[in-house]
Amino acid sequence: MPRYALKIEYDGAPFSGWQRQSHVPSVQQAVEEALSRLEPGDHRIAAAGRTDAGVHGLGQVAHCDLRKDWTPFRLSEALNYHLKPAPVAIVACAQVPDDWHARFSAIERRYLFRLVCRRAPLVHEAGKVWQVSQELDGAAMQAAADRLLGQHDFTTFRSSICQAQSPVKTLDALRVEQVPRHDGALAFHFHVRARSFLHNQVRSFIGTLERVGAGAWTPDDVTAALEAKDRAACGPVSPPHGLYLAAVGYPDDPFA
Amino acid sequence: MPRYALKIEYDGAPFSGWQRQSHVPSVQQAVEEALSRLEPGDHRIAAAGRTDAGVHGLGQVAHCDLRKDWTPFRLSEALNYHLKPAPVAIVACAQVPDDWHARFSAIERRYLFRLVCRRAPLVHEAGKVWQVSQELDGAAMQAAADRLLGQHDFTTFRSSICQAQSPVKTLDALRVEQVPRHDGALAFHFHVRARSFLHNQVRSFIGTLERVGAGAWTPDDVTAALEAKDRAACGPVSPPHGLYLAAVGYPDDPFA
Repeated sequence: MPRYALKIEYDGAPFSGWQRQSHVPSVQQAVEEALSRLEPGDHRIAAAGRTDAGVHGLGQVAHCDLRKDWTPFRLSEALNYHLKPAPVAIVACAQVPDDWHARFSAIERRYLFRLVCRRAPLVHEAGKVWQVSQELDGAAMQAAADRLLGQHDFTTFRSSICQAQSPVKTLDALRVEQVPRHDGALAFHFHVRARSFLHNQVRSFIGTLERVGAGAWTPDDVTAALEAKDRAACGPVSPPHGLYLAAVGYPDDPFA
Repeated sequence: MPRYALKIEYDGAPFSGWQRQSHVPSVQQAVEEALSRLEPGDHRIAAAGRTDAGVHGLGQVAHCDLRKDWTPFRLSEALNYHLKPAPVAIVACAQVPDDWHARFSAIERRYLFRLVCRRAPLVHEAGKVWQVSQELDGAAMQAAADRLLGQHDFTTFRSSICQAQSPVKTLDALRVEQVPRHDGALAFHFHVRARSFLHNQVRSFIGTLERVGAGAWTPDDVTAALEAKDRAACGPVSPPHGLYLAAVGYPDDPFA
């Protein structure tokens, strides 16, 4: 059975997250049901990152096994046809070796978090960014973000229901980029990169950095929270709808 | 009665256009009804540009007359409260002289048109850009756009139901900007600027330029279409959902 890697974009709003669950819609189920339209029967796909309810995908990667030899172009076209009208699209497709695994072969995950500081409700990006009403200090957020880089016990920034065996992870990048907007409002993109993440780690980072941007926390407070290794020391967890699984890295990019 | 200028952002999708009409929703009606919640009675507002069904607003400008003296901040906050959940937001507000008029005082309109070249359905920008499946040649579109600059009889690029007294207008700018995207797909922003526009003029331009980008038309064909002064010589009219009324210019910016 040939194996295919799928790069998947999705709007997280209507889904209870990536992972298939009973009685609630998931992105995984949407893709698996589209696969069933191509080759009848049950399909189970594995993904690089199990995004939470409301979190979006720009470059999620999953793999599937099919009976037929599909050209990658025809497979993505057929899946996109059957995915309609769900806000899920296959943006790239490639045949991969039988032992290639979307999750276990991955060596890097990149997340993007979008935040806009504006009082007036957002019209065009509603549900696509975290909107806060006060202006934030980008330099202070970057200074605090730098305290989180490297290998640490990230217990503070880990959901209490996280199933990872160890809270020790290495954060490779957390860059705060100020981005221009048509309306002159302050806006930030947070670019976060690691081999792997703990449950709610990015949203715990962002919620804490927002407190720094607002002046309620200092970068030293972030260091103290990290060193506390205590979930109770974390700032508020940001809402999910500003978060995007942006890209997944492999030793050899299957889509190159 | 003090007069207020309002800068308004809206998603055009659920509306039959800016202008109030019987039995269909309009942006004008949404704003007027919000005004009625602040000061009971009928309100009639005038806007700088009467956008068509499906066309979006980033910087539409309208004015209203109220009985009470509102601070601009409180007025915009109250209107945004009452506009919910409609995708319409007051992003700036200013008191203006009694003889200031959102439409007649305007000396410039700017439109933005967003176009993305990609086969896979757009997930995050569905309804916000015009998606075409083939790649387009940006340099060829800019060369053709240059043929439209300056003062011309734009009968070719004018809706047959246009009510303007004269088809002669001066196009001050039509810049084709290639913009980067996360997925590597080609994308263009068209920046269009004039004192005023004919009905469907921007969408007639963009639909024609897309034909040039696809290689079906040459810049010389665009010159010939312009010189024909014949609506039948126009290329296809683009769909409305990539179009944004971006900004309105006044001799003195009321929101500065």
